[in-house]
Amino acid sequence: MGKGIASRSENYSQWYNDIVKRAGLADHSAVRGCMVIKPHGFAIWEKIKANLDKMFKDTGHVNAYFPLFIPKSFLSREAKHVEGFAKECAVVTHHRLMNDPEGGGVVVDPSAKLEEELIVRPTSETIIWNTYKDWIQSYRDLPVLVNQWANVVRWEMRTRPFLRTAEFLWQEGHTAHATKEEAIEEAEKMHEVYARFAEDYMAMPVIKGVKTENERFAGALETYTIEALMQDKKALQAGTSHFLGQNFAKAFDVTFLNENNKDEHVWATSWGVSTRLVGALIMTHSDDQGLVLPPKLAPVHVAIVPIPKPGPEIDEVAHKIREQLEAKNLSVQYDTDLKKRPGFKFAEHELKGVPVRLAIGKRDLEKRQIEVARRDTGEKVSVPLDGAVEFVEKLLDDIQSNLYNRALEFRAANTHEAKSLSEFKELMEANSGFVKAHWDGTTETELRIKDETKATIRCVVKDENDEAGICIYSGRPSKRKVLFAKAY
Amino acid sequence: MGKGIASRSENYSQWYNDIVKRAGLADHSAVRGCMVIKPHGFAIWEKIKANLDKMFKDTGHVNAYFPLFIPKSFLSREAKHVEGFAKECAVVTHHRLMNDPEGGGVVVDPSAKLEEELIVRPTSETIIWNTYKDWIQSYRDLPVLVNQWANVVRWEMRTRPFLRTAEFLWQEGHTAHATKEEAIEEAEKMHEVYARFAEDYMAMPVIKGVKTENERFAGALETYTIEALMQDKKALQAGTSHFLGQNFAKAFDVTFLNENNKDEHVWATSWGVSTRLVGALIMTHSDDQGLVLPPKLAPVHVAIVPIPKPGPEIDEVAHKIREQLEAKNLSVQYDTDLKKRPGFKFAEHELKGVPVRLAIGKRDLEKRQIEVARRDTGEKVSVPLDGAVEFVEKLLDDIQSNLYNRALEFRAANTHEAKSLSEFKELMEANSGFVKAHWDGTTETELRIKDETKATIRCVVKDENDEAGICIYSGRPSKRKVLFAKAY
Repeated sequence: MGKGIASRSENYSQWYNDIVKRAGLADHSAVRGCMVIKPHGFAIWEKIKANLDKMFKDTGHVNAYFPLFIPKSFLSREAKHVEGFAKECAVVTHHRLMNDPEGGGVVVDPSAKLEEELIVRPTSETIIWNTYKDWIQSYRDLPVLVNQWANVVRWEMRTRPFLRTAEFLWQEGHTAHATKEEAIEEAEKMHEVYARFAEDYMAMPVIKGVKTENERFAGALETYTIEALMQDKKALQAGTSHFLGQNFAKAFDVTFLNENNKDEHVWATSWGVSTRLVGALIMTHSDDQGLVLPPKLAPVHVAIVPIPKPGPEIDEVAHKIREQLEAKNLSVQYDTDLKKRPGFKFAEHELKGVPVRLAIGKRDLEKRQIEVARRDTGEKVSVPLDGAVEFVEKLLDDIQSNLYNRALEFRAANTHEAKSLSEFKELMEANSGFVKAHWDGTTETELRIKDETKATIRCVVKDENDEAGICIYSGRPSKRKVLFAKAY
Repeated sequence: MGKGIASRSENYSQWYNDIVKRAGLADHSAVRGCMVIKPHGFAIWEKIKANLDKMFKDTGHVNAYFPLFIPKSFLSREAKHVEGFAKECAVVTHHRLMNDPEGGGVVVDPSAKLEEELIVRPTSETIIWNTYKDWIQSYRDLPVLVNQWANVVRWEMRTRPFLRTAEFLWQEGHTAHATKEEAIEEAEKMHEVYARFAEDYMAMPVIKGVKTENERFAGALETYTIEALMQDKKALQAGTSHFLGQNFAKAFDVTFLNENNKDEHVWATSWGVSTRLVGALIMTHSDDQGLVLPPKLAPVHVAIVPIPKPGPEIDEVAHKIREQLEAKNLSVQYDTDLKKRPGFKFAEHELKGVPVRLAIGKRDLEKRQIEVARRDTGEKVSVPLDGAVEFVEKLLDDIQSNLYNRALEFRAANTHEAKSLSEFKELMEANSGFVKAHWDGTTETELRIKDETKATIRCVVKDENDEAGICIYSGRPSKRKVLFAKAY
């Protein structure tokens, strides 16, 4: 067991906090609910960002940047949106501080009250659609395919690093289209991009589906989601893509002249993922020794540890291996710190989730071999020096797919069907992961089930072979089974 | 003259606004003083960011992220810092909105008043040094070499896109060191990095020097600056690096156990550049036809225009050239839009600052040649198809150095010396650019000169052959000439 890390089986929540802290991912800050993302945590976010950004650009999107602040009145423009987002948020009311006349530092200058309060963006649909009004006049201006990387603030009461914080980093795509079909196609395309990213880069299998009306984004006609199962068998919503219809175009009066010279309202989508993905990564793969990272998102792929310490012979081999690995676009750290012993270094690289560790010692070198350890299984093997680089390269691929397969097996083992309410409740009480069950399609039933079991409908899986049945709760007809789980 | 662009000679300020608008760089927003950075403007910022980020990492820095909000009391901790930054800023006082009981949308919930107001960061020294208190215990924890890419807010009264906005994007480096010497070395190193970036990437020559006490960053013991001359002969401060001494370590009680087991306060630096650099780029190189971009920061390097429109033969050549250029890491746009004529496309690529334009027409192809136009000089030449790619590659290098040399010549032609106050005033009235003059070293004289002439001391150039003399204003002794200019 890693030093200072609770075991997952004993206390999952403490284990998570320990990993975040001990692996140097994030710190609490002096500001309620806001975290400091530490260099190692931020390096993982940078990898996530770089790969997603490329996927967005490859699908025709460009980046832009919109104001941090939203005039209060904008939030009220779209009826459902205001319900969802004009609640717990940071409100700017003044624009100046002054010296306290009574000598107590600085105080808010009462004369600098804003005419209209500004909200720190909880999401940017309103300010962006207010801008699109100026950008879009004719069908020639469409589509608009814009993404923004930004910080947003939602005044959450209970926060946990990465999973739920008052301020978080994210990307939000906001697109504008001439037709309903094109907008739906875009929302579905980005849903697919998120699923691909989760599976191919994060090695995290996801279920793709749509949210129920009750769980939809405030202002959306359809919300597409990817849902993953964490090691404690709770679900985590990892990314959402929304078909917004013409709601925001109508709220902000964004119309375009179509090819027949007729004015129409524009069709919209939005889609986002956040630093929450770092939390998802941790909870999908890590173990009691520390962080486990899929190679595609690891800031350092290979750590080289000299046994017992650096020296001319070992250095020469280490430098050569590093050079060859770097030529393959892999990131390598040769750990030459003289103040730390090999065992300490091993534990540290394990803690930080470095996928592969090489140990180079004199005795091994005499046999022209080095020791290679993989982080995911802990296995160690001696490998001939010749071909070691190719071995490592292949091993990284193996680790990437092993992590995915392991998570997929875990999900399969923790996905069940419930044919009755009692069966459902038993499964939920036993904390059994995803549970498929028939539901009558009403919000009323959905909320009652949530109330009685804490389980929510994670999504309605669209591509399933839909079989009609009987709702486990109400006994009314159900069109298809939906996916329930307790969730983050 | 570009359509809808004022000429620089007639109205420089209008010309600047026209370029920003017409080249699609930025828009005003619904929020006072905040701009929307449009895709083309943001693509330039992304190039700036990517190159600087690499330079920071190559000099040993890592990225992290600190909270957007700063508790009000933090600002008061460092005496000079509070004077400089606790003035015009965005103050968050509440954390909830509620439905207006009188039915007028949403209003601030008076019961959700924060115990302590939060300031939207105008700069992050305080929140970061409050965090470093937890990170730094021993000399083994030093140095801390951290950078953050973030948005900041300063409630400016008069704003201009990129040059001065209420919200802007920037990076802020914050480093912690065991010794004074090491901190000074770091501040000077980053000063050098900024100068190198300005000259090598932005093709913008800069003067390196230190700020006078009066112009120093609030809380710094020394502020290093790079100063550039814009085409209207006003100076622009393009980047600053600060040696902060132990001021913030003392204010936030950050100490470390040195190698002799004695507690000492940590030494600090901070350094930053912002989206202001996009404004500097515009004003250094652009002309009455639109934006001119140095190839190293151009989002698109080469635009290919088919004459008069795409077709099998032209497409084949265009695709081949694009492929070959892309293999050299150059970004190419083949402009196949059927709705626009070649002349319109030429003007558009000129407006957007694409460094090189290729025109491919049937008649030229019969002669196995294409037309190559360079944006910086407007020159066009016919180039044999064989070798065209190599020609373009070399041309881009030429453009990069031509832009630099042109700006350097401009600066040389607009740098003068004043031996008397009347000479100084004449030069300033004639708007003559940089003026070197003797100054007695007092803030009093500095402020009087500013008051009478609007000129400020841009910097004290350290590596000049310092010759003593007589202050042009007070007649008192002066150790060296300093650099004056009217500035942005």
